[in-house]
Amino acid sequence: MSRRGVTVWFTGLSGAGKTTLSQGVAQQLRAWGLPVEVLDGDVVRQYLSKGLGYSKVDRDENVRRIGFVAKLLTRQGVIVLVSAISPYRQTRQEVRQQIGNFIEVFVDAPLAVCESRDVKGLYRKARAGLIQNFTGIDDPYEPPENPEVICKTAEQSIAESVQQVMQCLQDKGYL
Amino acid sequence: MSRRGVTVWFTGLSGAGKTTLSQGVAQQLRAWGLPVEVLDGDVVRQYLSKGLGYSKVDRDENVRRIGFVAKLLTRQGVIVLVSAISPYRQTRQEVRQQIGNFIEVFVDAPLAVCESRDVKGLYRKARAGLIQNFTGIDDPYEPPENPEVICKTAEQSIAESVQQVMQCLQDKGYL
Repeated sequence: MSRRGVTVWFTGLSGAGKTTLSQGVAQQLRAWGLPVEVLDGDVVRQYLSKGLGYSKVDRDENVRRIGFVAKLLTRQGVIVLVSAISPYRQTRQEVRQQIGNFIEVFVDAPLAVCESRDVKGLYRKARAGLIQNFTGIDDPYEPPENPEVICKTAEQSIAESVQQVMQCLQDKGYL
Repeated sequence: MSRRGVTVWFTGLSGAGKTTLSQGVAQQLRAWGLPVEVLDGDVVRQYLSKGLGYSKVDRDENVRRIGFVAKLLTRQGVIVLVSAISPYRQTRQEVRQQIGNFIEVFVDAPLAVCESRDVKGLYRKARAGLIQNFTGIDDPYEPPENPEVICKTAEQSIAESVQQVMQCLQDKGYL
Protein backbone atom coordinates (compact mmCIF):
# COMPACT_ATOMS: atom_id res chain seq x y z
CA MET A 1 0.00 0.00 0.00
CA SER A 2 3.08 2.15 0.24
CA ARG A 3 3.98 3.12 -3.32
CA ARG A 4 2.04 4.35 -6.33
CA GLY A 5 1.70 1.83 -9.10
CA VAL A 6 1.59 2.67 -12.78
CA THR A 7 1.01 0.92 -16.07
CA VAL A 8 3.50 1.59 -18.84
CA TRP A 9 1.78 0.56 -22.07
CA PHE A 10 4.03 -0.18 -25.04
CA THR A 11 2.10 0.01 -28.30
CA GLY A 12 3.37 -0.40 -31.83
CA LEU A 13 3.70 -2.72 -34.79
CA SER A 14 4.90 -6.28 -34.53
CA GLY A 15 8.68 -6.14 -34.57
CA ALA A 16 8.87 -2.50 -33.44
CA GLY A 17 10.69 -3.55 -30.27
CA LYS A 18 7.96 -3.53 -27.62
CA THR A 19 9.02 -6.73 -25.88
CA THR A 20 12.74 -5.93 -25.99
CA LEU A 21 12.09 -2.49 -24.61
CA SER A 22 9.73 -3.61 -21.86
CA GLN A 23 12.24 -6.26 -20.79
CA GLY A 24 15.00 -3.65 -20.70
CA VAL A 25 12.90 -1.40 -18.49
CA ALA A 26 11.87 -4.34 -16.29
CA GLN A 27 15.49 -5.27 -15.75
CA GLN A 28 16.40 -1.76 -14.58
CA LEU A 29 13.40 -1.49 -12.29
CA ARG A 30 14.09 -4.90 -10.74
CA ALA A 31 17.71 -3.95 -10.20
CA TRP A 32 16.35 -1.05 -8.13
CA GLY A 33 14.24 -3.48 -6.12
CA LEU A 34 10.94 -2.15 -7.45
CA PRO A 35 7.87 -4.38 -7.90
CA VAL A 36 7.47 -5.08 -11.61
CA GLU A 37 5.20 -7.24 -13.70
CA VAL A 38 5.53 -7.68 -17.45
CA LEU A 39 2.35 -8.49 -19.35
CA ASP A 40 3.33 -9.52 -22.84
CA GLY A 41 0.46 -9.56 -25.33
CA ASP A 42 1.42 -12.90 -26.86
CA VAL A 43 1.85 -14.58 -23.49
CA VAL A 44 -1.27 -13.12 -21.95
CA ARG A 45 -3.28 -14.24 -24.95
CA GLN A 46 -2.53 -17.88 -24.07
CA TYR A 47 -3.73 -17.46 -20.53
CA LEU A 48 -6.63 -15.06 -20.83
CA SER A 49 -7.80 -15.04 -24.41
CA LYS A 50 -7.77 -18.55 -25.72
CA GLY A 51 -10.34 -18.62 -28.51
CA LEU A 52 -10.06 -14.95 -29.40
CA GLY A 53 -8.86 -14.10 -32.90
CA TYR A 54 -7.67 -10.94 -34.60
CA SER A 55 -10.88 -9.21 -35.63
CA LYS A 56 -11.40 -5.73 -34.22
CA VAL A 57 -13.85 -7.04 -31.65
CA ASP A 58 -11.50 -9.80 -30.51
CA ARG A 59 -8.44 -7.56 -30.42
CA ASP A 60 -10.34 -5.01 -28.37
CA GLU A 61 -11.55 -7.68 -25.96
CA ASN A 62 -7.99 -8.95 -25.56
CA VAL A 63 -6.69 -5.44 -24.86
CA ARG A 64 -9.47 -4.86 -22.31
CA ARG A 65 -8.56 -8.08 -20.50
CA ILE A 66 -4.92 -7.06 -20.31
CA GLY A 67 -6.14 -3.67 -19.10
CA PHE A 68 -8.22 -5.28 -16.36
CA VAL A 69 -5.26 -7.26 -15.04
CA ALA A 70 -2.97 -4.23 -15.34
CA LYS A 71 -5.46 -2.19 -13.31
CA LEU A 72 -5.50 -4.70 -10.45
CA LEU A 73 -1.71 -4.83 -10.30
CA THR A 74 -1.34 -1.05 -10.66
CA ARG A 75 -3.62 -0.35 -7.74
CA GLN A 76 -1.51 -2.71 -5.65
CA GLY A 77 1.53 -0.52 -6.25
CA VAL A 78 3.14 -2.53 -9.02
CA ILE A 79 4.86 -1.06 -12.07
CA VAL A 80 3.15 -2.97 -14.87
CA LEU A 81 4.82 -3.12 -18.26
CA VAL A 82 2.37 -4.08 -20.97
CA SER A 83 3.69 -4.91 -24.39
CA ALA A 84 0.87 -5.38 -26.88
CA ILE A 85 0.26 -4.16 -30.43
CA SER A 86 -3.08 -2.70 -29.26
CA PRO A 87 -3.76 -1.10 -32.62
CA TYR A 88 -6.91 0.88 -31.81
CA ARG A 89 -6.59 4.35 -30.33
CA GLN A 90 -9.99 4.37 -28.68
CA THR A 91 -9.42 1.08 -26.88
CA ARG A 92 -6.06 2.26 -25.57
CA GLN A 93 -7.84 5.39 -24.38
CA GLU A 94 -10.37 3.22 -22.61
CA VAL A 95 -7.76 1.22 -20.68
CA ARG A 96 -5.94 4.45 -19.88
CA GLN A 97 -9.07 5.77 -18.22
CA GLN A 98 -9.74 2.49 -16.42
CA ILE A 99 -6.24 2.29 -15.02
CA GLY A 100 -5.63 5.93 -14.18
CA ASN A 101 -1.88 5.90 -13.61
CA PHE A 102 -0.89 5.33 -17.20
CA ILE A 103 2.05 6.03 -19.45
CA GLU A 104 1.67 5.32 -23.16
CA VAL A 105 4.89 4.52 -24.97
CA PHE A 106 4.67 4.59 -28.74
CA VAL A 107 7.30 2.17 -29.99
CA ASP A 108 7.61 3.79 -33.35
CA ALA A 109 9.48 2.03 -36.13
CA PRO A 110 8.56 2.26 -39.82
CA LEU A 111 6.72 -0.73 -41.22
CA ALA A 112 9.59 -1.39 -43.64
CA VAL A 113 12.02 -1.69 -40.73
CA CYS A 114 9.72 -3.98 -38.72
CA GLU A 115 9.20 -6.08 -41.80
CA SER A 116 12.90 -6.36 -42.53
CA ARG A 117 13.56 -7.43 -38.92
CA ASP A 118 10.71 -9.96 -39.07
CA VAL A 119 11.90 -11.66 -35.89
CA LYS A 120 9.00 -14.09 -35.76
CA GLY A 121 8.73 -14.60 -39.53
CA LEU A 122 5.17 -13.30 -39.40
CA TYR A 123 5.47 -10.54 -41.99
CA ARG A 124 6.67 -13.05 -44.53
CA LYS A 125 3.66 -15.22 -43.79
CA ALA A 126 1.31 -12.24 -43.93
CA ARG A 127 2.71 -11.11 -47.29
CA ALA A 128 2.33 -14.65 -48.56
CA GLY A 129 -1.31 -14.59 -47.47
CA LEU A 130 -0.78 -17.35 -44.91
CA ILE A 131 -1.90 -15.03 -42.09
CA GLN A 132 -4.85 -12.67 -42.36
CA ASN A 133 -5.61 -9.55 -40.35
CA PHE A 134 -1.98 -8.75 -39.76
CA THR A 135 -1.46 -5.28 -38.31
CA GLY A 136 0.29 -3.00 -40.79
CA ILE A 137 -0.32 -5.32 -43.73
CA ASP A 138 -4.05 -5.89 -44.03
CA ASP A 139 -5.18 -4.60 -40.65
CA PRO A 140 -4.95 -1.02 -39.37
CA TYR A 141 -2.62 0.48 -36.76
CA GLU A 142 -3.70 3.78 -35.28
CA PRO A 143 -0.68 5.60 -33.85
CA PRO A 144 -1.10 7.40 -30.53
CA GLU A 145 -1.79 11.12 -30.81
CA ASN A 146 -0.36 12.19 -27.48
CA PRO A 147 1.79 9.41 -26.06
CA GLU A 148 3.89 10.24 -23.03
CA VAL A 149 6.94 8.73 -24.74
CA ILE A 150 7.90 8.07 -28.37
CA CYS A 151 10.75 5.63 -28.92
CA LYS A 152 12.11 5.71 -32.46
CA THR A 153 13.68 2.29 -32.30
CA ALA A 154 14.98 2.40 -35.87
CA GLU A 155 17.04 5.51 -35.09
CA GLN A 156 18.18 5.03 -31.52
CA SER A 157 19.64 2.26 -29.38
CA ILE A 158 17.64 0.09 -27.00
CA ALA A 159 19.53 1.66 -24.11
CA GLU A 160 18.42 5.13 -25.24
CA SER A 161 14.79 4.03 -25.47
CA VAL A 162 14.94 2.39 -22.05
CA GLN A 163 16.40 5.60 -20.69
CA GLN A 164 13.52 7.64 -22.15
CA VAL A 165 10.97 5.49 -20.38
CA MET A 166 12.89 5.57 -17.11
CA GLN A 167 13.10 9.35 -17.35
CA CYS A 168 9.36 9.62 -17.88
CA LEU A 169 8.67 7.38 -14.87
CA GLN A 170 10.96 9.58 -12.81
CA ASP A 171 9.46 12.86 -14.09
CA LYS A 172 6.00 11.67 -13.17
CA GLY A 173 7.06 10.64 -9.71
CA TYR A 174 6.75 6.88 -10.01
CA LEU A 175 10.33 6.09 -9.06
CA MET B 1 8.67 -7.21 -2.53
CA SER B 2 8.49 -7.12 1.23
CA ARG B 3 5.71 -9.46 2.23
CA ARG B 4 4.58 -12.92 1.15
CA GLY B 5 1.39 -12.98 -0.85
CA VAL B 6 -1.15 -15.75 -0.76
CA THR B 7 -4.33 -16.76 -2.53
CA VAL B 8 -7.27 -17.76 -0.39
CA TRP B 9 -9.60 -19.70 -2.64
CA PHE B 10 -13.24 -19.97 -1.51
CA THR B 11 -14.99 -22.85 -3.25
CA GLY B 12 -18.51 -24.09 -2.77
CA LEU B 13 -22.05 -24.11 -4.12
CA SER B 14 -23.86 -21.01 -5.23
CA GLY B 15 -25.36 -19.48 -2.12
CA ALA B 16 -22.95 -21.22 0.27
CA GLY B 17 -21.60 -17.84 1.38
CA LYS B 18 -18.36 -17.49 -0.57
CA THR B 19 -18.78 -13.83 -1.44
CA THR B 20 -20.02 -12.81 2.01
CA LEU B 21 -17.15 -14.64 3.63
CA SER B 22 -14.47 -13.27 1.30
CA GLN B 23 -15.78 -9.75 1.85
CA GLY B 24 -15.70 -10.26 5.60
CA VAL B 25 -12.09 -11.43 5.45
CA ALA B 26 -11.18 -8.57 3.07
CA GLN B 27 -12.62 -6.04 5.48
CA GLN B 28 -10.52 -7.33 8.38
CA LEU B 29 -7.35 -7.49 6.33
CA ARG B 30 -7.85 -3.96 5.00
CA ALA B 31 -8.46 -2.71 8.52
CA TRP B 32 -5.00 -4.05 9.32
CA GLY B 33 -3.58 -2.15 6.36
CA LEU B 34 -2.75 -5.26 4.37
CA PRO B 35 -2.85 -5.35 0.56
CA VAL B 36 -5.97 -7.23 -0.50
CA GLU B 37 -7.67 -7.98 -3.78
CA VAL B 38 -11.00 -9.75 -4.09
CA LEU B 39 -11.60 -11.71 -7.28
CA ASP B 40 -15.24 -12.61 -7.41
CA GLY B 41 -16.11 -15.30 -9.93
CA ASP B 42 -19.18 -13.52 -11.28
CA VAL B 43 -17.37 -10.20 -11.63
CA VAL B 44 -14.23 -11.66 -13.15
CA ARG B 45 -16.34 -13.53 -15.69
CA GLN B 46 -17.51 -10.21 -17.15
CA TYR B 47 -13.97 -8.94 -17.56
CA LEU B 48 -12.01 -12.02 -18.50
CA SER B 49 -14.41 -14.65 -19.72
CA LYS B 50 -17.00 -13.01 -21.89
CA GLY B 51 -18.24 -15.72 -24.25
CA LEU B 52 -17.48 -18.62 -21.93
CA GLY B 53 -20.38 -20.71 -20.75
CA TYR B 54 -20.87 -23.37 -18.08
CA SER B 55 -19.65 -26.54 -19.73
CA LYS B 56 -16.79 -28.31 -17.97
CA VAL B 57 -14.31 -26.98 -20.50
CA ASP B 58 -15.54 -23.40 -20.13
CA ARG B 59 -15.74 -23.54 -16.34
CA ASP B 60 -12.20 -24.91 -16.20
CA GLU B 61 -10.94 -22.19 -18.54
CA ASN B 62 -12.61 -19.55 -16.38
CA VAL B 63 -11.04 -20.95 -13.22
CA ARG B 64 -7.62 -21.06 -14.91
CA ARG B 65 -7.92 -17.40 -15.89
CA ILE B 66 -8.81 -16.41 -12.36
CA GLY B 67 -5.86 -18.52 -11.24
CA PHE B 68 -3.52 -16.73 -13.63
CA VAL B 69 -4.52 -13.31 -12.29
CA ALA B 70 -4.37 -14.55 -8.70
CA LYS B 71 -0.85 -15.83 -9.33
CA LEU B 72 0.38 -12.46 -10.59
CA LEU B 73 -1.08 -10.64 -7.60
CA THR B 74 0.12 -13.25 -5.12
CA ARG B 75 3.70 -13.02 -6.30
CA GLN B 76 3.49 -9.26 -5.79
CA GLY B 77 2.74 -9.78 -2.12
CA VAL B 78 -1.02 -9.34 -2.26
CA ILE B 79 -3.53 -11.39 -0.26
CA VAL B 80 -5.92 -12.48 -3.01
CA LEU B 81 -9.39 -13.64 -2.04
CA VAL B 82 -10.99 -15.66 -4.82
CA SER B 83 -14.63 -16.52 -4.53
CA ALA B 84 -15.70 -18.89 -7.28
CA ILE B 85 -17.77 -22.07 -7.34
CA SER B 86 -14.85 -23.83 -9.09
CA PRO B 87 -16.57 -27.20 -8.97
CA TYR B 88 -13.79 -29.43 -10.28
CA ARG B 89 -11.21 -30.78 -7.85
CA GLN B 90 -8.51 -31.32 -10.42
CA THR B 91 -8.72 -27.77 -11.74
CA ARG B 92 -8.51 -26.32 -8.24
CA GLN B 93 -5.48 -28.55 -7.72
CA GLU B 94 -3.97 -27.13 -10.89
CA VAL B 95 -4.34 -23.49 -9.80
CA ARG B 96 -3.03 -24.41 -6.35
CA GLN B 97 0.14 -25.71 -7.96
CA GLN B 98 0.43 -22.70 -10.28
CA ILE B 99 0.06 -20.22 -7.46
CA GLY B 100 2.08 -21.95 -4.76
CA ASN B 101 0.98 -19.96 -1.71
CA PHE B 102 -2.54 -21.25 -1.57
CA ILE B 103 -5.25 -21.76 1.01
CA GLU B 104 -8.37 -23.62 -0.02
CA VAL B 105 -11.49 -22.75 1.93
CA PHE B 106 -14.39 -25.11 1.48
CA VAL B 107 -17.52 -23.05 2.05
CA ASP B 108 -19.64 -26.00 2.98
CA ALA B 109 -23.39 -25.61 3.20
CA PRO B 110 -25.90 -28.34 2.28
CA LEU B 111 -27.56 -27.93 -1.08
CA ALA B 112 -30.96 -27.65 0.63
CA VAL B 113 -29.74 -24.67 2.65
CA CYS B 114 -28.19 -22.93 -0.38
CA GLU B 115 -31.37 -23.53 -2.29
CA SER B 116 -33.58 -22.16 0.45
CA ARG B 117 -31.41 -19.02 0.67
CA ASP B 118 -31.46 -18.64 -3.13
CA VAL B 119 -30.12 -15.08 -2.90
CA LYS B 120 -29.91 -14.63 -6.66
CA GLY B 121 -33.05 -16.60 -7.49
CA LEU B 122 -30.95 -18.97 -9.57
CA TYR B 123 -31.95 -22.25 -7.93
CA ARG B 124 -35.58 -21.50 -8.65
CA LYS B 125 -34.71 -20.90 -12.30
CA ALA B 126 -32.56 -24.03 -12.45
CA ARG B 127 -35.34 -26.16 -10.95
CA ALA B 128 -37.74 -24.67 -13.46
CA GLY B 129 -35.38 -25.66 -16.23
CA LEU B 130 -34.73 -22.04 -17.22
CA ILE B 131 -30.99 -22.45 -16.52
CA GLN B 132 -29.01 -25.51 -17.50
CA ASN B 133 -25.70 -26.79 -16.11
CA PHE B 134 -26.35 -25.39 -12.67
CA THR B 135 -23.90 -26.68 -10.08
CA GLY B 136 -25.60 -28.93 -7.55
CA ILE B 137 -28.74 -29.34 -9.67
CA ASP B 138 -27.72 -30.76 -13.03
CA ASP B 139 -23.97 -30.14 -12.87
CA PRO B 140 -21.48 -31.72 -10.46
CA TYR B 141 -19.69 -30.22 -7.48
CA GLU B 142 -16.60 -32.06 -6.29
CA PRO B 143 -15.90 -31.12 -2.67
CA PRO B 144 -12.27 -30.59 -1.65
CA GLU B 145 -10.59 -33.58 -0.04
CA ASN B 146 -8.03 -31.74 2.03
CA PRO B 147 -8.99 -28.07 2.23
CA GLU B 148 -7.04 -25.93 4.68
CA VAL B 149 -10.31 -24.59 6.09
CA ILE B 150 -13.89 -25.85 6.16
CA CYS B 151 -16.55 -23.28 6.96
CA LYS B 152 -19.91 -24.81 7.80
CA THR B 153 -21.91 -21.71 7.07
CA ALA B 154 -25.25 -23.31 7.86
CA GLU B 155 -24.10 -24.08 11.41
CA GLN B 156 -21.91 -21.16 12.37
CA SER B 157 -22.00 -17.37 12.09
CA ILE B 158 -20.21 -15.38 9.40
CA ALA B 159 -17.97 -13.90 12.08
CA GLU B 160 -16.93 -17.40 13.15
CA SER B 161 -16.12 -18.39 9.57
CA VAL B 162 -14.14 -15.20 9.01
CA GLN B 163 -12.24 -15.94 12.20
CA GLN B 164 -11.37 -19.44 10.98
CA VAL B 165 -9.84 -18.05 7.79
CA MET B 166 -7.93 -15.34 9.65
CA GLN B 167 -6.60 -17.96 12.04
CA CYS B 168 -5.39 -20.10 9.16
CA LEU B 169 -3.66 -17.11 7.54
CA GLN B 170 -1.96 -16.40 10.83
CA ASP B 171 -0.96 -20.02 11.47
CA LYS B 172 0.66 -20.21 8.07
CA GLY B 173 2.58 -16.99 8.61
CA TYR B 174 0.81 -14.75 6.10
CA LEU B 175 -0.22 -12.10 8.61
